[in-house]
Amino acid sequence: MIGKGTLYIVSAPSGAGKSSLIAAMLEKNPTYAMKVSVSHTTRGMRPGEEDGVHYHFVEKSEFESLIEQGAFLEYAEVFGNYYGTSRLWIEETLNKGIDVFLDIDWQGARQIREQMPEAKSVFILPPSNSELERRLNVRGQDSDEVIAKRMSEAKSEMSHYNEYDYVIVNDDFDGALVDFKAILRAERLKQDKQAVKYKGMLDALLAE
Amino acid sequence: MIGKGTLYIVSAPSGAGKSSLIAAMLEKNPTYAMKVSVSHTTRGMRPGEEDGVHYHFVEKSEFESLIEQGAFLEYAEVFGNYYGTSRLWIEETLNKGIDVFLDIDWQGARQIREQMPEAKSVFILPPSNSELERRLNVRGQDSDEVIAKRMSEAKSEMSHYNEYDYVIVNDDFDGALVDFKAILRAERLKQDKQAVKYKGMLDALLAE
Repeated sequence: MIGKGTLYIVSAPSGAGKSSLIAAMLEKNPTYAMKVSVSHTTRGMRPGEEDGVHYHFVEKSEFESLIEQGAFLEYAEVFGNYYGTSRLWIEETLNKGIDVFLDIDWQGARQIREQMPEAKSVFILPPSNSELERRLNVRGQDSDEVIAKRMSEAKSEMSHYNEYDYVIVNDDFDGALVDFKAILRAERLKQDKQAVKYKGMLDALLAE
Repeated sequence: MIGKGTLYIVSAPSGAGKSSLIAAMLEKNPTYAMKVSVSHTTRGMRPGEEDGVHYHFVEKSEFESLIEQGAFLEYAEVFGNYYGTSRLWIEETLNKGIDVFLDIDWQGARQIREQMPEAKSVFILPPSNSELERRLNVRGQDSDEVIAKRMSEAKSEMSHYNEYDYVIVNDDFDGALVDFKAILRAERLKQDKQAVKYKGMLDALLAE
């Protein structure tokens, strides 16, 4: 019997390594049933992007119609473009027993928690501001002003770390990946999940 | 800064491999701060047992005086002998940041949860009754009656698996050990634990 998957809200400031960690989780655990949620957006497709992979690209009128239908678990308007998370795909995927990662900021995370209180949330932190600044400025070509703006945004995001169930400090990437895997494995060992997965075995064990 | 350790209540029917799993956890993770709680008892010491290792052996009058002082998180009388879990040692150990394993049955587990609701509980199940019977009868010299009694006690204990936070199915020992380690690692990644462990780092990250 297949139990429901778990929805993982994953947040972090830019530069904390969130995308790399999620990518590594998917790549190194091909047998582990998990997928990343692909957001809907009304912004234009950029070179190298693929519809359905990086985003589901839709027209503004379609997005607004989806809002009216209550199709989004959360959405936001940023610089005149909409971004949203489809409820239907997530629910269908979870019902197949597949865990879903949702890469989202603290504001989206709050909306998701209200809609799906059973979701688990993970915040990824860099080990220090100097390391974060280094990661945000790898090309070394950005102005001080641009870097200061990124650092300020990062600080604002990080100030919400205490709203999350789990916190991973990404100092050493491999260690952070082991942490992430431990969270997923432990969540699957929760009593309610195991009771569904092992229903047949439990019925046999407890039969008179 | 050292945060508090976690108290792990660990229950299982005889033959599920609980003691071997706890022993393997302690042996294979020497750097991981964890200890097993040693119970107090009024029963006599058996050959090979050591005071303070297998039990704290005390007189009945001393045990009853400890009960009156509220020194036990839980205690029970079995065949005229007392068995109990000392509150003081557990609290001191947890306060040092050390996780404590408490090997106890479902009735003791209930008492502990009432006293320390922040404790996490793990139930270990065998994969089948035939495998459990095989493990309970390894010498092959017990009467059918003795085996039937053990199986009946095991079934009674297993019927409480759903009162626990986590369930591990000990089919493959190494897999069950990885499960156990994942639970401990994930619990240490909980936001409240990490906020204490990384207080200095967080203060620096979020400073204006």
